Amino acid sequence: MLKYAADRFQSHTSALALDTEALRRYPDMIDLSIGDTDIITDRRIIDAAYKDACAGYTRYGDPKGDPELIEAVCKAWKEDYDQTISPNEVLVTTSSCMGMAQTMLGLLNPGDEVLVFGPYFSPYKDQIEMAGGKAVEVVTLAENSFFPQEEDVRAAITSRTKAFIINTPNNPTGAAYDLPTLQMLARLAQEYDLLAVADEIYTRYLYDGMFIPMRTLPGMTDRTITLNSFSKNFMMTGWRVGYIIAHPDLISIFQHIDNSMTYVTPSISQRAALYALTIRQDIAEKYISVYKNRVYYAYDCISQIPWLSIVKPRGTFYLFPKIDPAIDMKDGEFCKYLIENAHLLVSAGSAFGLAGQGHFRIAATVPQEKLVLAMDRLSALNPPLK
Amino acid sequence: MLKYAADRFQSHTSALALDTEALRRYPDMIDLSIGDTDIITDRRIIDAAYKDACAGYTRYGDPKGDPELIEAVCKAWKEDYDQTISPNEVLVTTSSCMGMAQTMLGLLNPGDEVLVFGPYFSPYKDQIEMAGGKAVEVVTLAENSFFPQEEDVRAAITSRTKAFIINTPNNPTGAAYDLPTLQMLARLAQEYDLLAVADEIYTRYLYDGMFIPMRTLPGMTDRTITLNSFSKNFMMTGWRVGYIIAHPDLISIFQHIDNSMTYVTPSISQRAALYALTIRQDIAEKYISVYKNRVYYAYDCISQIPWLSIVKPRGTFYLFPKIDPAIDMKDGEFCKYLIENAHLLVSAGSAFGLAGQGHFRIAATVPQEKLVLAMDRLSALNPPLK
Repeated sequence: MLKYAADRFQSHTSALALDTEALRRYPDMIDLSIGDTDIITDRRIIDAAYKDACAGYTRYGDPKGDPELIEAVCKAWKEDYDQTISPNEVLVTTSSCMGMAQTMLGLLNPGDEVLVFGPYFSPYKDQIEMAGGKAVEVVTLAENSFFPQEEDVRAAITSRTKAFIINTPNNPTGAAYDLPTLQMLARLAQEYDLLAVADEIYTRYLYDGMFIPMRTLPGMTDRTITLNSFSKNFMMTGWRVGYIIAHPDLISIFQHIDNSMTYVTPSISQRAALYALTIRQDIAEKYISVYKNRVYYAYDCISQIPWLSIVKPRGTFYLFPKIDPAIDMKDGEFCKYLIENAHLLVSAGSAFGLAGQGHFRIAATVPQEKLVLAMDRLSALNPPLK
Repeated sequence: MLKYAADRFQSHTSALALDTEALRRYPDMIDLSIGDTDIITDRRIIDAAYKDACAGYTRYGDPKGDPELIEAVCKAWKEDYDQTISPNEVLVTTSSCMGMAQTMLGLLNPGDEVLVFGPYFSPYKDQIEMAGGKAVEVVTLAENSFFPQEEDVRAAITSRTKAFIINTPNNPTGAAYDLPTLQMLARLAQEYDLLAVADEIYTRYLYDGMFIPMRTLPGMTDRTITLNSFSKNFMMTGWRVGYIIAHPDLISIFQHIDNSMTYVTPSISQRAALYALTIRQDIAEKYISVYKNRVYYAYDCISQIPWLSIVKPRGTFYLFPKIDPAIDMKDGEFCKYLIENAHLLVSAGSAFGLAGQGHFRIAATVPQEKLVLAMDRLSALNPPLK
C-alpha cells in the first residue's frame, strides 16, 4: 500500500522514536535513548488536574488556550525575565514539538531555507520539509563548545533563508550558548532580516549561568518565535503542553493552523500546567538538581574512557560523546554494538545531522543506580580498533 | 509581521473556532456554535485516568500509542463490527482532527485532489491544502438527504483524484449515508483506485439504523483509512485522543509524521480512553440518548418555523436549517442577526463549503432548558423579507 503515500515518504528514515523492539530483546536493557524524564509528575500537579477535571475541565475550552494559563505564562515570563508579554502574543500548543511543526507550516513557502545548527534535534528537519522548506545544516564543532561560528552562519545564508532555529540548552549536545553567541545570532538576524525560532524547552536545565531567552535581546522581540514546554521543565512529558510566544500577527496564523490540527491542547493538561507554574521554583530545586548530578556523574565516567571524548554539558540531561575514529564502526553500528555487548540503548549521533556523525547521545533519564550500572558497562567495553 | 508568514496564510478565513468575542457580548447569549459536548466526562473515566497518572503514566510511553489501548481498540472493533484488525493497523492520534491532518500530509503530493462532500466539516479543506493538495467539493442536496449522487461523484473525479473523505453521521447536516450510498462510493473507489478516508467519529450518534464502517465493505479494508475518536462518543473532547485504522504501510508513515508533530498522544488521555472503551455501552445509553432527544426536539421546533426548512437529522448533535431565500441576508449576515436579535451564537453555513451557503448550523450542545429557550427565541423572530 506504500504506493499510495506521498512521494516524500516513499523512503523515510525512522524518526527519533523509542526502539521498542530493541528494548524487549534483553530483560536487563538500560534505556538511555529517549529524552523522557523517568521522574513522574509531582503529585500536587496531578491532584490539581484531577480536581479541575472533576469540576468540568474535560471540554475543548478556548481555542487559543486556557485564558488562565496564558495569563500565568505572561506573569511568570515577567517575573523570570523582566519582559512584558501580552496574552495575544501567546498560543498554547500540544507540546513544543507541535509548536515547531506549526511554526514551520506557518512561515515557509516552498523552497524557503531554515538554518539548523548541527548536531540538531532531528524532528526539525522533518518539520521544515513537511512545510515544503529546506533544512540547511550549519555544522558546529566540539572544539567550539558546539557554538555556531559567525563565518559559518554567514556562509550558509542565501536569498531564500527565512529563519534559523536555535536550541539552547541543546539537545543532543548539552551545550548552552554564551551571551556573545546569542548576540552574534541576533545581529545576523537583523542584518539579513531573518526570524529566530528559539526552542528553549530546557530553560531550567542550565547548570552554569543564567538562562537568557533570545526574545529579550535588543531588537529581537518581534523577530523571535519562542517555543517553550512543560514537558522537561516540569517532568510533564506525557501531558503534551507547550506554548509559542510570538508577534500577534504570527500567533493568529499559528492558531489557524492549530485549529486544523489538534484544534486545542488537552484541557486537563492545561490545568496541570497552570498549577505547575505556581510551584516552578520548588520543582526546579527538587528535581532538576537530580539531573544535574546525573549528567555530571556520567560526564566524569565518560571522560575516563580512552576511546570516547566529550564536551562537558552545560545543561539538559543529554551527553554526546564522540567515538574514537580508530574504532571501526559508524555511529549506527556502534549503537548496535552497545545493544549487543552492553545491553545499552542509546541514540546514534547521525540522527542529529551531519555534525552528529561519529557520536552517540545518552539521555540520563534513568535512576542513579541504573546510570551507575550503565556507565560501568560502558567503561568495561573494549571495542575493536581498525 | 504578517509579511513573514507563508503566502498561503496571507489571507486566511477564520477556522471554525469558538467566537469568544461574540460570546462575551451578551450575558444571556446561548452558544450553539461549537460541537463540544456540554456533558462532562463520566467520573469513572476521570477517576481511572487519575489513578493511572498517580501510578506513573505521566511519561511519553510508546510512540505508536499505549499498547493496551491499541489492543482494546482492536478488541472493541471485533466485538462491534465483527472484523479483525491487528495492532499494527492502529495508530493512536491526538484527536481525529490531528489524524486527518496527518493522513493528508502522508498521502498527498502537490496538486493531488481530494473529494469532499459538501456541506463538509470545514477543517478538511485546510488540512488538504496544508499538505499541498486541492479540496474538490461535490455538492450534496437536501432533497437527496445530503447523500452524494453517483453522477456528481463521477463528474468530479480526475486523473489527480487520490481520495475522498466521507463523514457519516455528518457534521454539519446530521445526515447518515444509507448502505446503497456507501456501496456506490466503495464501487467508485475500486473502479478509480481511490482511497476512502472515513471520518467516523459520530459512530454512536446514529439514531436510526446500525452504523456500518466503510472498511467493513467488501474490497474496502485496505483501501480505507478510518478515523475515530473518543471526543464525541465518550464526551471526552478535552482529552484529545483518537485513532487511525489503516494498512500497516500507511500507519508506519502516519506514525513518522506523528512523531514530528505531537510525538505521542497524552498518556493520561490514553489511559482514560482505555477505561472508556470498557464501559462504552453504558456511556452510549446514558448520555447519547440525551442528544437524540435534544436533536429531535429542535427538529420539531424548526420544522414549525415558516422561514426555515430542514432535513431531519439521522445522527450527530447538529441541525442544519436552510434560511428562506426570500430573507434578504447571506448566511453570515443572518448569524450576526441571530446574535443581535436573539442572542444566539450559531455557525454560518458557508463555513461548510458552497453547499452550506444559505444555511446555518446548530449544535444541540446545551442543556434541554437552554435549548428550549433558544428555540423559543428563534421561533419568535420575524426576519425581514426582500
